[in-house]
Amino acid sequence: MQRARVRTGEGLADGLADAKGKQARAGVLSPEDRLLRSCRGESVDRPPVWLMRQAGRYLPEYRAVRAGVSFLEMCRDVERAVTVSLQPIDLVGSEAVILFQDIFTPVPAMGVDLDFAPGPVMAEPIRSAAQIRALRVPDPRESVPFVFEIIRALRSELSSRRIPLLGFAGAPFTLAAYMVEGRGSKDFGVLKRMLHREPALLRELLGILTELTVGYLNAQIEAGAQAVQLFDTWAGLLSQGEYREWIQPTHQEIARRIDRASAPFILYVHNGAHVVDQMAEAGADVISLDWRVDIADAARRFGERVSLQGNLDPCALAAPPLRVAAMVKEMAAAAAPARGHIANLGHGCLPETPVEGVRAFTQAVRSL
Amino acid sequence: MQRARVRTGEGLADGLADAKGKQARAGVLSPEDRLLRSCRGESVDRPPVWLMRQAGRYLPEYRAVRAGVSFLEMCRDVERAVTVSLQPIDLVGSEAVILFQDIFTPVPAMGVDLDFAPGPVMAEPIRSAAQIRALRVPDPRESVPFVFEIIRALRSELSSRRIPLLGFAGAPFTLAAYMVEGRGSKDFGVLKRMLHREPALLRELLGILTELTVGYLNAQIEAGAQAVQLFDTWAGLLSQGEYREWIQPTHQEIARRIDRASAPFILYVHNGAHVVDQMAEAGADVISLDWRVDIADAARRFGERVSLQGNLDPCALAAPPLRVAAMVKEMAAAAAPARGHIANLGHGCLPETPVEGVRAFTQAVRSL
Repeated sequence: MQRARVRTGEGLADGLADAKGKQARAGVLSPEDRLLRSCRGESVDRPPVWLMRQAGRYLPEYRAVRAGVSFLEMCRDVERAVTVSLQPIDLVGSEAVILFQDIFTPVPAMGVDLDFAPGPVMAEPIRSAAQIRALRVPDPRESVPFVFEIIRALRSELSSRRIPLLGFAGAPFTLAAYMVEGRGSKDFGVLKRMLHREPALLRELLGILTELTVGYLNAQIEAGAQAVQLFDTWAGLLSQGEYREWIQPTHQEIARRIDRASAPFILYVHNGAHVVDQMAEAGADVISLDWRVDIADAARRFGERVSLQGNLDPCALAAPPLRVAAMVKEMAAAAAPARGHIANLGHGCLPETPVEGVRAFTQAVRSL
Repeated sequence: MQRARVRTGEGLADGLADAKGKQARAGVLSPEDRLLRSCRGESVDRPPVWLMRQAGRYLPEYRAVRAGVSFLEMCRDVERAVTVSLQPIDLVGSEAVILFQDIFTPVPAMGVDLDFAPGPVMAEPIRSAAQIRALRVPDPRESVPFVFEIIRALRSELSSRRIPLLGFAGAPFTLAAYMVEGRGSKDFGVLKRMLHREPALLRELLGILTELTVGYLNAQIEAGAQAVQLFDTWAGLLSQGEYREWIQPTHQEIARRIDRASAPFILYVHNGAHVVDQMAEAGADVISLDWRVDIADAARRFGERVSLQGNLDPCALAAPPLRVAAMVKEMAAAAAPARGHIANLGHGCLPETPVEGVRAFTQAVRSL
């Protein structure tokens, strides 16, 4: 049944050929080939599709698995994490699986006491040199072994179906933002105060978190992640000049030091319409765009060098299914000049997203 | 004392001449002339300076006046509102006064029950056709007479000192966002659901709020406001295409229908780096930029047609005063190619802003 569903999706693309002849050359691809080739700008039959936060509360089946366990328990429970990671394939027609986990998963083992309420909340915000110097960078294989168990279990479920598995990590700046501020915030005034008053401290913290992230992503790739995405949720808080100074170097270092030959690197920046030029220079294979970015413009300007991912507003999935399909077509046409395009949202699926809207989204891509 | 302070600021500019010879032609101007001429792109000696939300909680003197009264009482109390509106002139060296009031001031008289907690919270969110059709557009002179009393009182305080007075209003989209959602929100999912599922309803609501805003701003101009600013706090939530369809027409209609000959029109869009092109086409005299906008780029691209306001990150005022001064110089140099530049922040002053940072900001501009 599951395999039939996947094949139906592929069948829809059968025989289509795009203006550039890419599709004709590529024939009908497996979801795995379609995604990985799109990341690298190789020819494909049509864009692959998945959704950020596709394993989430908008799905009743997710809520059923989640019932009665805390978010942290859920992340550490290999069976539950595998189950919810896989749900979007058959429930909404997603063509890639992303590891169910939180961006803060590797952080407690650094020596940071935190909880989720529901976003990450530090028991003690990290604001002093002493606190920063006390942070450890553990081997994630030892500190969070369940992550790699989940990856191996997912790969063994997915490989026969040739569905790709994505790993991910939170970006150093975003982790630092929560750690310094103590929790989510509208303005992140404490973080920015550190940036302006104690820049050396923040630089040290970002360095440590970059180490952590490189090791964590490489361990995921080693365990079987076929592509990895870096989520920089709060990078859009900085001006272009500050982004260039504080954030871009962390992305570039990660791009240099992870095993991109084994797994392409996707860089997502939320609310980053003002730093798309810098994103394109990060050394990523794919830049994943917020819905506020004009994807046609990005395709024209950077599409020869990097592939694009995105970028429908998650709230647009509330539109009637026919309207969703029309927006998907517009998005795909706008992104088409790029060397590769992975159809996705511009941010994560929201809890109130109607499931039929998500289905309309994947179906429309699979019908391209 | 107050006049002496203002003159000190002017004195600093005395004798300076910029590369373009603008200053030499203009001589030393009053704060009023400097601001109004900058709005219209006429020659000035140096940029004028004020700060969004300059009358606010970061000032101990504001908190003293505010103590023991609710925000709504404060807005309706002419004496208190006048006092806090004037405080930034002498306390931080601001060169323009903006009416102390809330963007929701004219809304209760439409028939909408709301409170502040501390942002606006609707007793009943506006989501049905019946609710929208029941909204009235009252004459603000009758429904909120205190606003015009405050304006007249401020003008009589300010005119001898030749300090300009700005009026303001919330933009239709931002008012609608709160009214439909019921309160502030991260994603405004309910608002966007209306946009996608019941576009005719949202269009009707925006039409009514545009009427309200035009009448409210014109009444402020009639009472003595010398320039008016429209605050579109939530416009940055929409994609570029949606902004063009839903928001830009409201700005254009307001620009057409208010008495711009008597008071220049300043358009502020928060988080609008992706819609700066559209802002420049709104018909405003000045576009007020978020700190994420590259002001040098905006100056090059639109600076011949519109003046610019902004755009330092309010959080940057936490930097040491010398660093604030350096950032002000950078900002002014970047904006210099524009026909006019009003030094300001990219968003409102935050409660935790150090007063010395605000003073360093105004002083640096006054020393340009």
